[in-house]
Amino acid sequence: MLSALDLVRRIEAGELTPAAVIERCAEAIALHEPKIGAFVSLDLRDARRTAKTCADALIARPLRGLPVGVKDIFDTSALPTEYGTPIYADHHPIGDAAMVSLVRRAGGLILGKTVTTELGLFQPGKTRNPRNPEHTPGGSSSGSAAAIAAGMLPIALGSQTGGSTIRPAAYCGVAGFKPSFGLMPTPGMKCVAWHLDTVGLFAASVADVAFAAASITDRDLRIDRLSPEAPRIIVVRTHLWSEVSDPMKLALETAVKTAQAHGANIEDRELPSIFEKAFRSHNVIQAYEAYRVLAFEYDHHRERLSPALHGFLEDASAITAEAYQAALTSAELARKALSDILGETDVIFTPAAPGGAPKGLGSTGNSTFNRLWTLMGVPCVSVPVLEDSEGLPLGVQVVGRFGCDHEMLRAAHFLELAIVQGRG
Amino acid sequence: MLSALDLVRRIEAGELTPAAVIERCAEAIALHEPKIGAFVSLDLRDARRTAKTCADALIARPLRGLPVGVKDIFDTSALPTEYGTPIYADHHPIGDAAMVSLVRRAGGLILGKTVTTELGLFQPGKTRNPRNPEHTPGGSSSGSAAAIAAGMLPIALGSQTGGSTIRPAAYCGVAGFKPSFGLMPTPGMKCVAWHLDTVGLFAASVADVAFAAASITDRDLRIDRLSPEAPRIIVVRTHLWSEVSDPMKLALETAVKTAQAHGANIEDRELPSIFEKAFRSHNVIQAYEAYRVLAFEYDHHRERLSPALHGFLEDASAITAEAYQAALTSAELARKALSDILGETDVIFTPAAPGGAPKGLGSTGNSTFNRLWTLMGVPCVSVPVLEDSEGLPLGVQVVGRFGCDHEMLRAAHFLELAIVQGRG
Repeated sequence: MLSALDLVRRIEAGELTPAAVIERCAEAIALHEPKIGAFVSLDLRDARRTAKTCADALIARPLRGLPVGVKDIFDTSALPTEYGTPIYADHHPIGDAAMVSLVRRAGGLILGKTVTTELGLFQPGKTRNPRNPEHTPGGSSSGSAAAIAAGMLPIALGSQTGGSTIRPAAYCGVAGFKPSFGLMPTPGMKCVAWHLDTVGLFAASVADVAFAAASITDRDLRIDRLSPEAPRIIVVRTHLWSEVSDPMKLALETAVKTAQAHGANIEDRELPSIFEKAFRSHNVIQAYEAYRVLAFEYDHHRERLSPALHGFLEDASAITAEAYQAALTSAELARKALSDILGETDVIFTPAAPGGAPKGLGSTGNSTFNRLWTLMGVPCVSVPVLEDSEGLPLGVQVVGRFGCDHEMLRAAHFLELAIVQGRG
Repeated sequence: MLSALDLVRRIEAGELTPAAVIERCAEAIALHEPKIGAFVSLDLRDARRTAKTCADALIARPLRGLPVGVKDIFDTSALPTEYGTPIYADHHPIGDAAMVSLVRRAGGLILGKTVTTELGLFQPGKTRNPRNPEHTPGGSSSGSAAAIAAGMLPIALGSQTGGSTIRPAAYCGVAGFKPSFGLMPTPGMKCVAWHLDTVGLFAASVADVAFAAASITDRDLRIDRLSPEAPRIIVVRTHLWSEVSDPMKLALETAVKTAQAHGANIEDRELPSIFEKAFRSHNVIQAYEAYRVLAFEYDHHRERLSPALHGFLEDASAITAEAYQAALTSAELARKALSDILGETDVIFTPAAPGGAPKGLGSTGNSTFNRLWTLMGVPCVSVPVLEDSEGLPLGVQVVGRFGCDHEMLRAAHFLELAIVQGRG
């Protein structure tokens, strides 16, 4: 994989140019893309030209000209934006999504658009898991996770409404960061559910993804220059523990033991039943809002929706305002309870997915272990901890307090370093 | 003015058809539009055709085929969408904003796009105040408020980031409704600041705007069929009371006395200083987020921005992440404090604007009395109470508890009825 921090340090030391980084990506893309299918479009020519003609200006900015992939649900004026559906085949938006503009402002070069599921929901795209092409890369940010895992890109944008960043990151063995709700702007990103949609970021490691987030948002999120500090951790197995595979159980135990061995304070906690209710609320909110926010597609292009999405929206049309309001209320109560539970704790450790990436490309897996945290609006990152017997990565999800993205990333970085040391 | 409820009742009684309603609007438009300039585009032909060919289908839906105006910051695929800036001259979006789709689903006919200030911020459009064309109609939803006031439309969509719905409604003497943050979907609406942007609705009266909101959202917001009930009211003069004109002071006192005479429980309350801090935070959040969300326009089309917007964004670029974060924190603290203060109270009465619409078209007035409530995310509606010596309307703002839009509208309707009775 291409570490964004490693590349940036070498550019800063004058050992590497933005143009040379693009060539490294281009080589990896030439090698892996035919098998992986992470991209819907590529713009190597424009990136090469900009890297050559604007090298100094790029190097002066935080991302130092690093190539960035953009999930194809973010508007880009220079590249077609199809949102994973034939409804928008060859659509060229008039402007860039806010996040795309911020990447450019930070000195990133948009190298291409990455595969998304249909409108960020269920129907998979063409992408395969770089760790085993017979397995799903996860979704909906399939292409972004796979491009990082295959070393084709150092940074990629994604999004999460259910588990669309954390899950593919875990399945592909990369760091996926879902920031606190509202930290990064969603305008210009195709909406699924306005109370849930969150921008996501992918990179090789927690330190890399924190660097990317800091550079793009111009906020204090970078953690690589801090000395590691043992966090206070709560382990949450959730009411869905019986759905967790044995290898994933082992991954979580490994994360716990490794953190503990490095001085972390660990506590086990069972969440009260209010969270089970909130978990179920996620589906109600997502479906109710998707039926409204995808009204144009459903009302005017129904025949071009996949049967899965068509059925989902048809079912969603039956959700009452009362059920929706009750779901919002239950989410709000759980948010308050979570804030109390976390108290002086830094982070939660919990599975990022039920297990490793499932075999087959007909589904991108499920977001069972992500929905609650998306609904809570709290920051999460996936940390690869083990591999299962087939060599597929198993990720632990590190969850922080709302608005404490920096602290959460720092705790996840602590785990990441401890895991690497444990291996070494 | 055209009362949506009155038109709907006559359509339901078979006394009026959707086509006949469109002709009434068309007549008013022919008469007033040359002087008022509320529209940037009109689509009478398509509305006439649909009203004729789909009359039964329209009448079966909640809006019964009523014509609706759409502020030109909402995407419409059938009509150009220019967001009030030459940057997007003759732009045709590929889809409709969620709110536009919901209006259509509810059986509304989009009659035209209404004038907005430049990108929903400061630079006025061409619209004049129907109550006195030498005066501003307010902004940024200038055209929507003016179209309702001139009787050219029964319902119009707007938005509010500072005071863009409540202020023009007050200046034009119509009902402007800013629902609770998140109640109505903003995707497809040009964003100014993602923590603040709220959809707004305009109609002739509180009962009309509540009917429109109920129809479009399919939620229990209609209040015209309930018997009026005296609300518990807190009067908030805010720390900006010295900026309130004498006529507006009289309007607020009149609202208070009238409500009291009809049995309402009234209490005066001075807000603690935390709200003054929150009030100042609004500008920080709006500017910080606008600089990011309008990055595409600022970075690629700077020369086509008005000097006012250019200067605003330039200043905004200097706001630090720390200042922004402090502003968000202060807003959150004030939100919690407001929830405690409101307690068992139904609504706040407070001025909708410093006074009547100022003379001149060079500015749309200021949002001093609206920003705090937008930031709090609480539902508000403006109720015309008096006129100043020049015959310009003076509106009182009724503010509710977060999520209690129905109760707020009901209390405002109580005031509206009491005022009408007082006049009668």
